[in-house]
Amino acid sequence: MKGKRRSKNHDPEQIEFVGLKYLDEYYIQLFDYDKLKSKEIHDYNQINFNEFNNFNRVYWLNVNGLHDSRPIKNICSKLGIHKLVLQDILDTNQRPKMQEFENYIQFSVKSILPFLNDHLETEQISFVLSKNYLLSFQEKKGDHFEHIRRRIRGNTGIVRERGADYLLFMLLGAILDNYFETVEAIEDKTNQITSIDARSNPHPDTVLQIEKLKQDLQFVKKNMEPFKTAIGSIEKGMNFIEDRHLKYYYELKDHSSQLLDEIYTLIIRLESATNMFFSLQGYKMNQIMKTLTIISTIFIPLTFIVGIYGMNFDVMPEIHWHWGYYTIWGIMLLTIIIMLIYFRRKKWF
Amino acid sequence: MKGKRRSKNHDPEQIEFVGLKYLDEYYIQLFDYDKLKSKEIHDYNQINFNEFNNFNRVYWLNVNGLHDSRPIKNICSKLGIHKLVLQDILDTNQRPKMQEFENYIQFSVKSILPFLNDHLETEQISFVLSKNYLLSFQEKKGDHFEHIRRRIRGNTGIVRERGADYLLFMLLGAILDNYFETVEAIEDKTNQITSIDARSNPHPDTVLQIEKLKQDLQFVKKNMEPFKTAIGSIEKGMNFIEDRHLKYYYELKDHSSQLLDEIYTLIIRLESATNMFFSLQGYKMNQIMKTLTIISTIFIPLTFIVGIYGMNFDVMPEIHWHWGYYTIWGIMLLTIIIMLIYFRRKKWF
Amino acid sequence: MKGKRRSKNHDPEQIEFVGLKYLDEYYIQLFDYDKLKSKEIHDYNQINFNEFNNFNRVYWLNVNGLHDSRPIKNICSKLGIHKLVLQDILDTNQRPKMQEFENYIQFSVKSILPFLNDHLETEQISFVLSKNYLLSFQEKKGDHFEHIRRRIRGNTGIVRERGADYLLFMLLGAILDNYFETVEAIEDKTNQITSIDARSNPHPDTVLQIEKLKQDLQFVKKNMEPFKTAIGSIEKGMNFIEDRHLKYYYELKDHSSQLLDEIYTLIIRLESATNMFFSLQGYKMNQIMKTLTIISTIFIPLTFIVGIYGMNFDVMPEIHWHWGYYTIWGIMLLTIIIMLIYFRRKKWF
Amino acid sequence: MKGKRRSKNHDPEQIEFVGLKYLDEYYIQLFDYDKLKSKEIHDYNQINFNEFNNFNRVYWLNVNGLHDSRPIKNICSKLGIHKLVLQDILDTNQRPKMQEFENYIQFSVKSILPFLNDHLETEQISFVLSKNYLLSFQEKKGDHFEHIRRRIRGNTGIVRERGADYLLFMLLGAILDNYFETVEAIEDKTNQITSIDARSNPHPDTVLQIEKLKQDLQFVKKNMEPFKTAIGSIEKGMNFIEDRHLKYYYELKDHSSQLLDEIYTLIIRLESATNMFFSLQGYKMNQIMKTLTIISTIFIPLTFIVGIYGMNFDVMPEIHWHWGYYTIWGIMLLTIIIMLIYFRRKKWF
Amino acid sequence: MKGKRRSKNHDPEQIEFVGLKYLDEYYIQLFDYDKLKSKEIHDYNQINFNEFNNFNRVYWLNVNGLHDSRPIKNICSKLGIHKLVLQDILDTNQRPKMQEFENYIQFSVKSILPFLNDHLETEQISFVLSKNYLLSFQEKKGDHFEHIRRRIRGNTGIVRERGADYLLFMLLGAILDNYFETVEAIEDKTNQITSIDARSNPHPDTVLQIEKLKQDLQFVKKNMEPFKTAIGSIEKGMNFIEDRHLKYYYELKDHSSQLLDEIYTLIIRLESATNMFFSLQGYKMNQIMKTLTIISTIFIPLTFIVGIYGMNFDVMPEIHWHWGYYTIWGIMLLTIIIMLIYFRRKKWF
Repeated sequence: MKGKRRSKNHDPEQIEFVGLKYLDEYYIQLFDYDKLKSKEIHDYNQINFNEFNNFNRVYWLNVNGLHDSRPIKNICSKLGIHKLVLQDILDTNQRPKMQEFENYIQFSVKSILPFLNDHLETEQISFVLSKNYLLSFQEKKGDHFEHIRRRIRGNTGIVRERGADYLLFMLLGAILDNYFETVEAIEDKTNQITSIDARSNPHPDTVLQIEKLKQDLQFVKKNMEPFKTAIGSIEKGMNFIEDRHLKYYYELKDHSSQLLDEIYTLIIRLESATNMFFSLQGYKMNQIMKTLTIISTIFIPLTFIVGIYGMNFDVMPEIHWHWGYYTIWGIMLLTIIIMLIYFRRKKWF
Repeated sequence: MKGKRRSKNHDPEQIEFVGLKYLDEYYIQLFDYDKLKSKEIHDYNQINFNEFNNFNRVYWLNVNGLHDSRPIKNICSKLGIHKLVLQDILDTNQRPKMQEFENYIQFSVKSILPFLNDHLETEQISFVLSKNYLLSFQEKKGDHFEHIRRRIRGNTGIVRERGADYLLFMLLGAILDNYFETVEAIEDKTNQITSIDARSNPHPDTVLQIEKLKQDLQFVKKNMEPFKTAIGSIEKGMNFIEDRHLKYYYELKDHSSQLLDEIYTLIIRLESATNMFFSLQGYKMNQIMKTLTIISTIFIPLTFIVGIYGMNFDVMPEIHWHWGYYTIWGIMLLTIIIMLIYFRRKKWF
Repeated sequence: MKGKRRSKNHDPEQIEFVGLKYLDEYYIQLFDYDKLKSKEIHDYNQINFNEFNNFNRVYWLNVNGLHDSRPIKNICSKLGIHKLVLQDILDTNQRPKMQEFENYIQFSVKSILPFLNDHLETEQISFVLSKNYLLSFQEKKGDHFEHIRRRIRGNTGIVRERGADYLLFMLLGAILDNYFETVEAIEDKTNQITSIDARSNPHPDTVLQIEKLKQDLQFVKKNMEPFKTAIGSIEKGMNFIEDRHLKYYYELKDHSSQLLDEIYTLIIRLESATNMFFSLQGYKMNQIMKTLTIISTIFIPLTFIVGIYGMNFDVMPEIHWHWGYYTIWGIMLLTIIIMLIYFRRKKWF
Repeated sequence: MKGKRRSKNHDPEQIEFVGLKYLDEYYIQLFDYDKLKSKEIHDYNQINFNEFNNFNRVYWLNVNGLHDSRPIKNICSKLGIHKLVLQDILDTNQRPKMQEFENYIQFSVKSILPFLNDHLETEQISFVLSKNYLLSFQEKKGDHFEHIRRRIRGNTGIVRERGADYLLFMLLGAILDNYFETVEAIEDKTNQITSIDARSNPHPDTVLQIEKLKQDLQFVKKNMEPFKTAIGSIEKGMNFIEDRHLKYYYELKDHSSQLLDEIYTLIIRLESATNMFFSLQGYKMNQIMKTLTIISTIFIPLTFIVGIYGMNFDVMPEIHWHWGYYTIWGIMLLTIIIMLIYFRRKKWF
Repeated sequence: MKGKRRSKNHDPEQIEFVGLKYLDEYYIQLFDYDKLKSKEIHDYNQINFNEFNNFNRVYWLNVNGLHDSRPIKNICSKLGIHKLVLQDILDTNQRPKMQEFENYIQFSVKSILPFLNDHLETEQISFVLSKNYLLSFQEKKGDHFEHIRRRIRGNTGIVRERGADYLLFMLLGAILDNYFETVEAIEDKTNQITSIDARSNPHPDTVLQIEKLKQDLQFVKKNMEPFKTAIGSIEKGMNFIEDRHLKYYYELKDHSSQLLDEIYTLIIRLESATNMFFSLQGYKMNQIMKTLTIISTIFIPLTFIVGIYGMNFDVMPEIHWHWGYYTIWGIMLLTIIIMLIYFRRKKWF
């Protein structure tokens, strides 16, 4: 794996990939909605950018593999995209954002990948939306749009009719869906922890798991909030997004709010679970201490009593009494009974 | 029970029920306020939508059963309602919201159901308000409007005179009332927990119950806040809501605020109860430890003393003294007295 | 005591008292500032509403007893007051609020009653302010305005000159004063708890008291915040409140802020007290455990040693040594000394 | 000490001192910047208010001693200052605020006094700023402006040239400086607590001190925040404050923000210290319990073993064995070694 | 080290260095982008300020060493910079801020220095940006711009072409980079603490380290937030910053937000770690108590039993039974087995 985990943000001249390499080689998918065809391109020089000026058509150019910056630089320079956008595309540590330019809108979001080895990960996907084309860029750790591609291939009518902004909405929706699935997975784990383990067996691993889930939720929240902000900044009168499609974007924002609500609710539940855990730990400690105290409190005085009559003094009248031994037994039994009554009253057992 | 618990939000083409099915079969109630009659319809083709153009009348069309999407699709298409609204009606996992369209206002809210098996549940009810009709849609887990229907049947005058927006206000009021009842039920439980159980008997189940109530309150709050926001977005100059009725809606918003105040107060009280509980747990532990320490501290040294004179050394002058045994008793009693004084000073008993 | 504790808020037709009855019978006090007289009326039909149209005079009509809704209905209908205002007056569970109408301003606030049996209670007082009269309504659990009435009777000049809005300011000021007194009472209790009890004797009742005070403060805050909001919404250019009197209302708002500041400070102090308490509890536990540990650690090994020489083996050379017994004593004293040094180093005593 | 600690805020007629009396007698300092002289006045009738109309001069009238309200009433009535301002000056329990009037600006702030007996205290100082004079009022618990007076006496040029608003800025700056010194004093105490005491010796007094410092910071914050708000409300185009001096006031606001930042940071540090303390308390408890457990676990079984052979049964073959005694010693040593290994593995020592 | 740690903020006349001295002597670096040369100046009188009026050139004047205020006073007076800006430059305790003046923009920020002896420190760097020059001032504890100087020397083209505002952006970017590196260093430490130490060995030093890291993050946050605010206040239409360069500043603000996100996430993680730690401490305590309780509960009763038959009563029938000794062993073994079963059921081992 190549790549630096962090971007040197201060250097506007530096235009290179920042992140981890996953794909061996880049490849580009070009969807032409009118010709009803999609083709896979492995050499970026083969793209015919003249076609893109045909405003009657809708194109989706999906670039997989950011580690090779040449095709992306080429595409951006051909389509007149600002150097800062190019940098944002190549630097996969960007915060989700939306930026409006004169000739296009830039959208950078994080798509969440399914839990892998109990580890949450996101992948940056950048979009450039113009009048009749949508560009998308990703290193492609996971496949986020397969079912959309399938639907497009099957029935291209609706997108062609509705344009590139509608396609972008569908892709963002697919990304949002992944978040929902992740939060549901976390919810399932929360249910597991809170219903069985935490109550019967307060092992510190439970706290570990709870804290892990809290951090996962924070991770989702951290990526979700700027996503919502970015979508929320889409409003009436923007270029490239038709007003009749605005309601779809509002819907997306609404679903983001709903997801954040659910995350918040889960965090509250996990905090409850932490409280529960500590309470149980304290309770168990109390139980253990009670057992120790009952046993000690009963037997330590008794041991003292029998110790007395184990002494070897020449003069100890009691030990010569005929009923001495039995009397002692009586005293000891009485002591036990009194103590048991005392503990019972204190509700210790 | 049919249905997926979560909506696939990304797919604007998918128009189908999302949620759990409760009713076996849909049925529709049509209230015609002028003819002073209400009828139950089991076949959606029997609805005469032409009547709805008669602006001198007020209609309430209440659709029970969302699992069968055909009647709803039919109604929406006949009345020219947007596909996204249709989706919102069918997807019962929506966040409460208000949306203004050109020809109608859409209202999606959650009605809360009475505690069932200690479990809180909500049902989504969607409203579409137009000039002279009100549509309401629900799967009908519970009956939320029975007493309103009764009042309408008895005296239709006021609604006819005041129009569909007043009817909507009354239905929303009924929904809000259910929330009040739920919060009161939670308050009663809180009183129970904080007044008796938590003090005398700090069982970890108390914490469990407290955390359960906190989560119930969060659940209510989560549904109440967007409800309040939705109602709060009703303002002067809206279509379909007469200005003279605005005060009623303001009243509703005010009551929502009041409910949220009460929820907040209850959460504070429950957090106090948690503090109380942990304090009591710690106190009880202290009491147990004190008992153990008093008994141990008194008898362990005494046991040592009697142990000494149980030794079998040939040369142990004390054991041959005539007053030896009694001297030892004296020393031991003195030890006990000193210790009791020490503990008393430390205020251990 | 008659009355439902909660309002059925959804029913705009229902106009009846909601709350608890305190007075046996309603009575009305009418202050006429020009005639310099006040009279007590027990039959609402005796009120001459025509007088109220004489704009050169200032009237204060104070209605005590809400449980009998007839006089209030009568007054409101005679003076043309909206049905919703009437409802707000009768429903004593309203949130404090201010509403501007065309012909009058409605003010609903909660007046706090002095601590009674350690229990805080509020009473709703509703005001209706018009050009030349002020109406006030209350069930009259306590007497909030006595000293103002006295001052008015003694010197009516200032109010007559300044009008009804100035009178309202004075009444609101009196209500705010009660809040100040309540918060001071809570402050006194806080001082008591934090200075003496919590430190020397961490009984769980201390936590109980702290939590009780926190809840009292929350209760005051819950009533104070909408009070402040209501007063804060008074602004330049309102009907019925002269601009030259605005500064008085600003003063009230300022004092409300000050009170909320003090509440906040007290809550912080009480949270500190809770921390203190738990720390002391833990400290006391440590002290108890130290005592136990010191005693046990010293005497348990010694008891073992003396146990050895209490064994009855035929062959135990040491017990036949002449200095055996004294040697053992030496060993035991050495053990004690070493342990005491060890504990001293660990700073256990 | 005379005076009520709280203001009866509701009574606009009441114009009298509220607070604690410190000075025996009032005295007034009048600075005339052009005549380059300052005089001390002990009879308020000696002030020549006609001079104040000479707009070419700058006056600072500093009144010490609020308990005698006569001079203040006289000054306010002579200069046409509103009765509410007069009340605000006399009531020393006001919240810091800024109010713009037609002919002057009123400024009420709290000056903090140096720690006295570990106790923080503030003094209210009120300013009235007009075109060519500045009034300041205080009961004078401490001397806040001495070094400014010295500077003025030495070099009156700058103030005369710059006017009364610049003088006000300098006085407010002096007050702000006292806050900085107080926060630094708290910071020093925090350093002391967190670096030495808390770690080696977790006495509950440490928590007490931490909570005390937190409350001190809250006290400063409570006085600082409205101070900042008051200064922050100074803006372009105000009467009596020249635009070229605005930057000085912005500077003051900036320093207030900085102070609040530092307070916030200190609060965080103190909360860390509390965590540290509880952690240490728990750790110490663990250490104590470990010692107890190790000693008990080793010697209690051994004591049992030696107890066995102290029994007096007629038939006990082992005690007649020749190597019996030594065998028992072997068994006991073995037990000790096994246990030590076990504890070592558990990392108990 | 000379210097007062705090500024006397109230004194606008006082113009002197506030802070700690690091350099022995000041020196000034002058970059002239057109002549492609940079020179180091040790006598401020050698600066030719007439050059600065040549608007075709771009100058960067970097002043190292603030303790000697003469060169700075000289530069500011020559270039007509306001006295308050001069004060801000010399007082190194300023809050980061941006101020727009007529002829220049002032920028004060804190640059963070790499961890030195586990201690975080910042250095104040002040910028003055005008049409064709950029001034920077610092005491120079560390070298923040070396790699930028190198790049400038190598290739001056881009800055000359883009102007002084672009240079400022690059310098601010370099400062931001240092923050990123610091937060990464803290992240590494957090990983270390949370992955290994906290789990296996809950030493209180772990809490100490966690709290230390939290405070470091607070320190970064405290400096970062006003930095972001300052940059965020750069907007369209400002003098001295070209609109085409605005996107670069937006980028900086975006990266600041990202950094604050990461700080927030780390704080959450550290709070989780604290929870983990306390849970582990409690768990370990439970384990210790269990061991103690098991051993005590088994052996204390047994010791009592053997104590009985160590008594010396004349009449003790059991001790004369032939199987007495073996019976007792049987009873004791049975006791042990029953107890072990009991503990196993309680899941104590």
